[in-house]
Amino acid sequence: GALGGLGLALGLWRRQAALAAAREDEEEKELRQRFMAPPVSGLRELRRRRRELRSRMELLIMETQAEVCRALAALDPGASFAVDSWERKEGGGGISCVLQDGEVFEKAGVNVSVVSGLLSEEAARQMRSRGKSLKAKDGKLPFCAMGVSSVIHPKNPHVPTMHFNYRYFEIEEADGTKQWWFGGGTDLTPTYLNEEDAIHFHKTLKEACDKHDLKLYPKYKKWCDDYFYIKHRGERRGIGGIFFDDMDSPSKEEVFQFVKSCAKAVVPCYIPIVKKHCHDSFTPEEKLWQQLRRGRYVEFNLVYDRGTKFGLLTPGSRIESILMSLPLTARWEYMHNPPESSKEAEILEVLRNPKDWVH
Amino acid sequence: GALGGLGLALGLWRRQAALAAAREDEEEKELRQRFMAPPVSGLRELRRRRRELRSRMELLIMETQAEVCRALAALDPGASFAVDSWERKEGGGGISCVLQDGEVFEKAGVNVSVVSGLLSEEAARQMRSRGKSLKAKDGKLPFCAMGVSSVIHPKNPHVPTMHFNYRYFEIEEADGTKQWWFGGGTDLTPTYLNEEDAIHFHKTLKEACDKHDLKLYPKYKKWCDDYFYIKHRGERRGIGGIFFDDMDSPSKEEVFQFVKSCAKAVVPCYIPIVKKHCHDSFTPEEKLWQQLRRGRYVEFNLVYDRGTKFGLLTPGSRIESILMSLPLTARWEYMHNPPESSKEAEILEVLRNPKDWVH
Repeated sequence: GALGGLGLALGLWRRQAALAAAREDEEEKELRQRFMAPPVSGLRELRRRRRELRSRMELLIMETQAEVCRALAALDPGASFAVDSWERKEGGGGISCVLQDGEVFEKAGVNVSVVSGLLSEEAARQMRSRGKSLKAKDGKLPFCAMGVSSVIHPKNPHVPTMHFNYRYFEIEEADGTKQWWFGGGTDLTPTYLNEEDAIHFHKTLKEACDKHDLKLYPKYKKWCDDYFYIKHRGERRGIGGIFFDDMDSPSKEEVFQFVKSCAKAVVPCYIPIVKKHCHDSFTPEEKLWQQLRRGRYVEFNLVYDRGTKFGLLTPGSRIESILMSLPLTARWEYMHNPPESSKEAEILEVLRNPKDWVH
Repeated sequence: GALGGLGLALGLWRRQAALAAAREDEEEKELRQRFMAPPVSGLRELRRRRRELRSRMELLIMETQAEVCRALAALDPGASFAVDSWERKEGGGGISCVLQDGEVFEKAGVNVSVVSGLLSEEAARQMRSRGKSLKAKDGKLPFCAMGVSSVIHPKNPHVPTMHFNYRYFEIEEADGTKQWWFGGGTDLTPTYLNEEDAIHFHKTLKEACDKHDLKLYPKYKKWCDDYFYIKHRGERRGIGGIFFDDMDSPSKEEVFQFVKSCAKAVVPCYIPIVKKHCHDSFTPEEKLWQQLRRGRYVEFNLVYDRGTKFGLLTPGSRIESILMSLPLTARWEYMHNPPESSKEAEILEVLRNPKDWVH
């Protein structure tokens, strides 16, 4: 009868609900295994709005974090990443993964942050100075920013420092229109020049770019050389890579796909170089030169880096995650000038006059 | 006769001229001995316009440099100051004295600079943001700046870092009127708190101030605590001292006399502390904490310090002399938090909540 039919329907519904719950648990477990920690926006929420670019970008930065951390940890078996999930009381939060004082890495940090709130006056001023109009409503500009950023400082002076950062930004203007853009890049800072490594690094990045548009690599390679310029020294921080900002064309989807290719290129462009050199022998003089170059790294990051400045200016930002980019140790010697035709002078020459590594 | 009288007069004049020349040589020799190097403006020129404040200030900063260098060198007999005189092609120059990697001092720099030229747009903008009107003629603002500045980083973690700077600034506006002001200060950055030292340091500075006006020490002590604030850490760089800027009253002469008293107080406020602790024993953990505090010193100097920023912005400035203030070595550890009631926590507490050391 009718009751029997209802009972059957109810039974079916119950079974389906149980199956769905089990599937969800399974998915959650799988996602948890894929990441270093639960995502800031929550897995359920990310799945619910899975078609939105914000969700896809958050998943991408989470995956990139896990991929890089695992690749690094595999090379430094004695050490492990400390994982901190943190919240920002103004909105959002992040996950910082740091490996410190390992065998291979002096300090390796991979940080994800997904923050939202109202743009500070100073941050808005900085963005306007880059040509953004940003019409505020009652002086308020709601924003959402997310990104993965990382700096890897190895111990061995023959293994270069590597940095990458991929980020997405959205600002809501007074009339409700949303401005959005992507930014990012990957760049290498060797203590000594190794041409083979430089070529491998740039070639891997070029291949990632070329899949999308042949104009991208040359443009972003130059941007990288220009951006990482320590003006007061007349030197670049390193031998470059790619760098871009305010990228908002041809379309959200296409830019996202480009950023995804770049993020996927991080491990193949860097890890082989670490593997190749992490057991190289080195002298105390080479270690000392590394420490002096670390000092220049600090100078760039604290004096010029836009990301660091934005972080220091954003109320409630997590300082430890921003300054994670600083090396464990650094050195400043008064009037240190390496002798002509030394290996130290060789890298300085390239930092003063950037080269093209691939054509 | 007339000729005989003329011959006598000529002889007298010749003798007087020879005596004057000898006296001048003597004076020059004496002045040379008093200083680390010949002054930027030249001794003859300084003597010619000896009544002008610019000349008197240049002599004061030269004397202060020599006084401090000699007092430091006496405590570190194995090491000696490297003395570099440099010229700035845009006008002026300086003398940098640096002792590096001694027994007592890791890095001690005492720098004099006397520069003149046209204010850069960015430097003028920074000054206007401090409330100066600065009416420029065809966008040009001729300026003259001179000062002595010094940072002393000792090796032993029980000997504090000390910084001082005394400077004079003149800007000529479009209508020919000259704006002038003095600035400066002396402050202490210990790795560990020693109350006796803190009191001695502040008391010596207070006595120097009190000779001129009882209001100065409390005002400039607070200014120092406010100025050396590392905003992103919520900490001061050290336990303070005095700091002032834009001081242009009650009169040029009186401000100069005050600055002179402060400059003369540098040796008595610091040297006894170095003598007292430079042979203290210390542990590797204490050395590590010192290195972490050096990292904070770098953060303040590169992110906030107005003098460093002005230097990095001034075309043709001597970078090595500006960044002489950075320690030889520094360290950044992710999430380093000293345990409660440790000696490390004790100094942090004072850096977060400055104390009054003398009343």
